[in-house]
Amino acid sequence: MSIVVVGSVAFDSLKTPFGAREKILGGAATHFSLSASYFTDVRVVAVVGEDFTQEEESVMTRRGVDTRGIQHAKGKTFFWKGEYGENVNEARTLDTQLNVFEKFDPQVPAEYKDSDYLFLANIDPALQVRVRDSMKRVKLVGGDTMNFWITSQRQNLNEMLKRVDILLINDGEAKMLADDSSLPRAANKVLEMGPKALVIKHGEYGATIFFRDGEFGGGHHPFRAPALPLDEVRDPTGAGDSFAGGFMGYIASQGEITRRVLKHAMFYGSVMGSFAVERFGTERMQSLTREAIDERFNAFRELTHLD
Amino acid sequence: MSIVVVGSVAFDSLKTPFGAREKILGGAATHFSLSASYFTDVRVVAVVGEDFTQEEESVMTRRGVDTRGIQHAKGKTFFWKGEYGENVNEARTLDTQLNVFEKFDPQVPAEYKDSDYLFLANIDPALQVRVRDSMKRVKLVGGDTMNFWITSQRQNLNEMLKRVDILLINDGEAKMLADDSSLPRAANKVLEMGPKALVIKHGEYGATIFFRDGEFGGGHHPFRAPALPLDEVRDPTGAGDSFAGGFMGYIASQGEITRRVLKHAMFYGSVMGSFAVERFGTERMQSLTREAIDERFNAFRELTHLD
Repeated sequence: MSIVVVGSVAFDSLKTPFGAREKILGGAATHFSLSASYFTDVRVVAVVGEDFTQEEESVMTRRGVDTRGIQHAKGKTFFWKGEYGENVNEARTLDTQLNVFEKFDPQVPAEYKDSDYLFLANIDPALQVRVRDSMKRVKLVGGDTMNFWITSQRQNLNEMLKRVDILLINDGEAKMLADDSSLPRAANKVLEMGPKALVIKHGEYGATIFFRDGEFGGGHHPFRAPALPLDEVRDPTGAGDSFAGGFMGYIASQGEITRRVLKHAMFYGSVMGSFAVERFGTERMQSLTREAIDERFNAFRELTHLD
Repeated sequence: MSIVVVGSVAFDSLKTPFGAREKILGGAATHFSLSASYFTDVRVVAVVGEDFTQEEESVMTRRGVDTRGIQHAKGKTFFWKGEYGENVNEARTLDTQLNVFEKFDPQVPAEYKDSDYLFLANIDPALQVRVRDSMKRVKLVGGDTMNFWITSQRQNLNEMLKRVDILLINDGEAKMLADDSSLPRAANKVLEMGPKALVIKHGEYGATIFFRDGEFGGGHHPFRAPALPLDEVRDPTGAGDSFAGGFMGYIASQGEITRRVLKHAMFYGSVMGSFAVERFGTERMQSLTREAIDERFNAFRELTHLD
């Protein structure tokens, strides 16, 4: 099964306690695509500028990612500059240049329209709504958002929430979206806004999936996946998108969407997130093997399972 | 098998978003004892003042807790007043009156000396060392500490760390003790200070046990227990001590200390911590059944296990 992802492709300049990199390949759709490519066929919808070369595109195509949906526009590619201090959970944005991303008008190529799965990475919710509505036959829609849209585009975001089956956000976003400081209460409020399931990512503490009662063949009981205790988080950029790639990619590879599949997808999401932060940018996501992924999956199982 | 706990018995005045209570029974040794009493025989060493009545003591004796080690001194019982805001993970101390606790000179009664298990709740590390050294035949020593001792009594604390087999602290304490902002790195540094295993409690995100390689019949791989996503945390006071009570109590009930036992103990610790916060003070810990405990144990299993 194939999955379409719509989102940003970007250049990132990063500084972490482990070093710095200038203008390396980044963006939510990039991290998602590379991660999901270890599980299923991936098709990207994005926009890049004239500074985006064949070299960058081949990072994706080498992993079998279909890049026909990447528009090449006049101008520069979306650029983000940030740094992380000792607390790697908090990024400090030093510069954001939207460039061609500012007028991004996502077009899903006709060749993509037979995809059963769709992931709406973190972009303007109005665009997320339009893309989702242009792909009527998809079986499952995953989506992401961020604080900026929660505060500035609430009405469009509400429309988006009615159109995603599974929303993936972090603790702070969930609490902000629900206006509730209790995570479980916030989760239930978000589920009332539309999604059938909600994945809340807790950074180094893992992630929890909450369900609307009766959806995906089960009750309302949540399920929690751990994160791997890692001595060195070299670069946290893209961890959440790599999580989403592993999560959605695994689901798309299974053909059925049961609780069992979703639980395993939570583990694969955590696995891919744990790999992503081991090196800068997309480095680790370029060089994985399915064997290494399944080995780490087993490590996650040992970390959490009693028997 | 029986376990001896040395620590505080106190009166607490509490305010949380769910209400307030004046001068209710509290203290680390109290919460620990009640929690552990569902698993094994518990013996308390503590000090109380003249305001501590038969009614309070019977809360413990009704649960079969041996209170012969509670000294009755002239003066008032240790008193703590605090409040919790919307973020229940942070207590704000409004008043602390050490009272008889200030000159606490713990004496382990002769009748307790055949105990195989010992828990050193959060008191002056010099006292912890002395109690531990007075019980040479114990098979396993668990211990707790806090920021205050880490900064003000480091030398005594270092001696204490050499004498505990399993240290149970929270994220902030581990990072402070190791002077390292990375939790896994901090864990490894703390293990080098003495303990064979280290339990780090993450509040609503659960807890992780880290091992020194080769101890308790296994490698260095950590194990993580979840916390239950609870809509309402009515009173977080004593959650950590209730965790410790479930953890140590379960170990003491098993007769052998294997990795398998320690993993289950992590779950029972989380289970008891989750009950503790459902009501004020020791209310919930007074009225549990082993059936309810095992039912919640199974809920924790479902929350984390793939199959």
